[in-house]
Amino acid sequence: MSETVKPLAPGAVIGILGGGQLGRMLSVAASRLGYVTHIFEPGPAPAGHVSARVTTAPYEDLDALRAFAESVDIVTYEFENVPTAALDVIEAIRPIRPNRRTLAISQDRIIEKQFLNGLGLKTAPFAQVDGLADLEAAVASLGLPSILKTTRFGYDGKGQIRLTPGADLAAAWESMAGAPSVLEGFVAFEREISVIAARGVDGQVAAYDPGENVHREGILRTTTVPARISPALRSDAVLIAARILNALDYVGVMGVELFVTREGLLVNEIAPRVHNSGHWTQQGCVVDQFEQHIRAVAGLPLGDGTRYVDVVMENLIGADIERVPDLLRESSVALHLYGKGAWREGRKMGHVNRIVKG
Amino acid sequence: MSETVKPLAPGAVIGILGGGQLGRMLSVAASRLGYVTHIFEPGPAPAGHVSARVTTAPYEDLDALRAFAESVDIVTYEFENVPTAALDVIEAIRPIRPNRRTLAISQDRIIEKQFLNGLGLKTAPFAQVDGLADLEAAVASLGLPSILKTTRFGYDGKGQIRLTPGADLAAAWESMAGAPSVLEGFVAFEREISVIAARGVDGQVAAYDPGENVHREGILRTTTVPARISPALRSDAVLIAARILNALDYVGVMGVELFVTREGLLVNEIAPRVHNSGHWTQQGCVVDQFEQHIRAVAGLPLGDGTRYVDVVMENLIGADIERVPDLLRESSVALHLYGKGAWREGRKMGHVNRIVKG
Repeated sequence: MSETVKPLAPGAVIGILGGGQLGRMLSVAASRLGYVTHIFEPGPAPAGHVSARVTTAPYEDLDALRAFAESVDIVTYEFENVPTAALDVIEAIRPIRPNRRTLAISQDRIIEKQFLNGLGLKTAPFAQVDGLADLEAAVASLGLPSILKTTRFGYDGKGQIRLTPGADLAAAWESMAGAPSVLEGFVAFEREISVIAARGVDGQVAAYDPGENVHREGILRTTTVPARISPALRSDAVLIAARILNALDYVGVMGVELFVTREGLLVNEIAPRVHNSGHWTQQGCVVDQFEQHIRAVAGLPLGDGTRYVDVVMENLIGADIERVPDLLRESSVALHLYGKGAWREGRKMGHVNRIVKG
Repeated sequence: MSETVKPLAPGAVIGILGGGQLGRMLSVAASRLGYVTHIFEPGPAPAGHVSARVTTAPYEDLDALRAFAESVDIVTYEFENVPTAALDVIEAIRPIRPNRRTLAISQDRIIEKQFLNGLGLKTAPFAQVDGLADLEAAVASLGLPSILKTTRFGYDGKGQIRLTPGADLAAAWESMAGAPSVLEGFVAFEREISVIAARGVDGQVAAYDPGENVHREGILRTTTVPARISPALRSDAVLIAARILNALDYVGVMGVELFVTREGLLVNEIAPRVHNSGHWTQQGCVVDQFEQHIRAVAGLPLGDGTRYVDVVMENLIGADIERVPDLLRESSVALHLYGKGAWREGRKMGHVNRIVKG
């Protein structure tokens, strides 16, 4: 299934769909490998501060997309909810990596879970919910607590409601505003971990050490490496990620979120892009997840992802940004700000990587 | 002497004179701290690949310089040979850090050595050479071998000739094309080291561990940290750098090159900017020299420059760039390419940092 492709030549232009912090850090990584980037972003683009070129246009502007695609050598993305029509226009002109099939799967929570189950991987129990009757049936079958989520376009805890015993199901369904949804059954997990894995054009797979994640209000707060898991579980986690990447004939970096339970690992979700829980690699490894992704999509060999220090990554969310003056004075702290301007509740403004052990 | 200045606010624009690899890595560091950069560069500007804005104009274009200065909040440089008239225009509009006095000193080898000697620091013996008679007298006094250098605008071994016993002095002088020159006496050094030191707006000084440098044909080839020197010499080296920075009321990062001799340390030269021999800090420290420089010129507290691994930095010069496919496959190697296009003899195309010990 794997292609044999000439690596992108030095000076080649990589188009990036999405101009947020992930695009920003991808752009910096691309520069280290001698590439130039062009960002496509409908809104403000902090990635543009470190990119040779930015196109500001909505994903519905097919002319702008066409010009963008023609100006680059290959297209990747930091953001998996790019509309299908936009991808169609681009793909007619330049290759998109990671591939369309992965995007289609990861854009829909139900299709994603079916795909994972089809690989023999466990997920949370789930049921499709397209109306109040579905929701009532799903609750009867999966029990409460459980989580009602839109099947598409959810991120950072948006588009989801936690239902606890006694919840008003009619009100919950109403709040979804008719969006196709999925009820996910409760998983009694000991901890959440994630594997940041990469697959090259030649089929080579590499994975970073799993990190242990703490979420609050649906948003990642910290990732700690190494995760407190046994060597056997660590190996299971990496093998699960590899199975997913190979099944998708994937090229690039993927974040695979897993629940550690008494019965082993469950896949929570996959993200076909560099992932917040992989930011620790910037201080922990000689080749970080951003460079690994660029190496993969550029057809270069994957890099050395050996972890040589212990790291705790902490997101700076909303008002956390006001801690920056103190963080600047702290030792063993690497600061990464996203250039986003004013903070808002829940907005990711930056992160820090704390080196815990040299 | 030190100013009390409000730190640059997030989102502020830092102007950088010079768009080569140093400007490029400064720009990336600025982005991590939430700043935006604007590059001023007469020629091709690889720094522009990772900068929000580039002005392409000669340093003689005072209107362009004026517009540049007005568009930024502060100006720094990657390149110490900016013409005085250009600096005059900029300084009337925005602060320049490091300061003008340092630039004036470091632009002239004789003034620099006189300044260093005035601080009680040893340098190579030297004599001013403005004609053949001066050269003959200087050779009589300093002996051979020695090195004839232009006092200004020399870098990477350019504008210098090594004179050995029996050298044709008339031909040597002729090759300087009438440029004011200096003869530097031979120094029997055991090794060359350098200290990358920083001084903040508040007078705080920080220094990285000294690195040991190997030059070939006047160009830096490798820097190894730690340098093979005693703790006493390490301390001397750092104190020398601190003395220079304080004497200049310096703000920013400076590279101080030193010769290790039987009689102790001699200062070879100072560079009022981030320095090639400090590139190892990108992999060795949580705050690298580029971020340290931006912190200093932005009025932020200096960062933690503790070295937590051993590193060997190797420059990729000219045809070395053809080793990149192999370097991409090597473990423990961080690659930093400069986006310069075709290689030329002696041209710095990139560098690698090899982690030697975790």
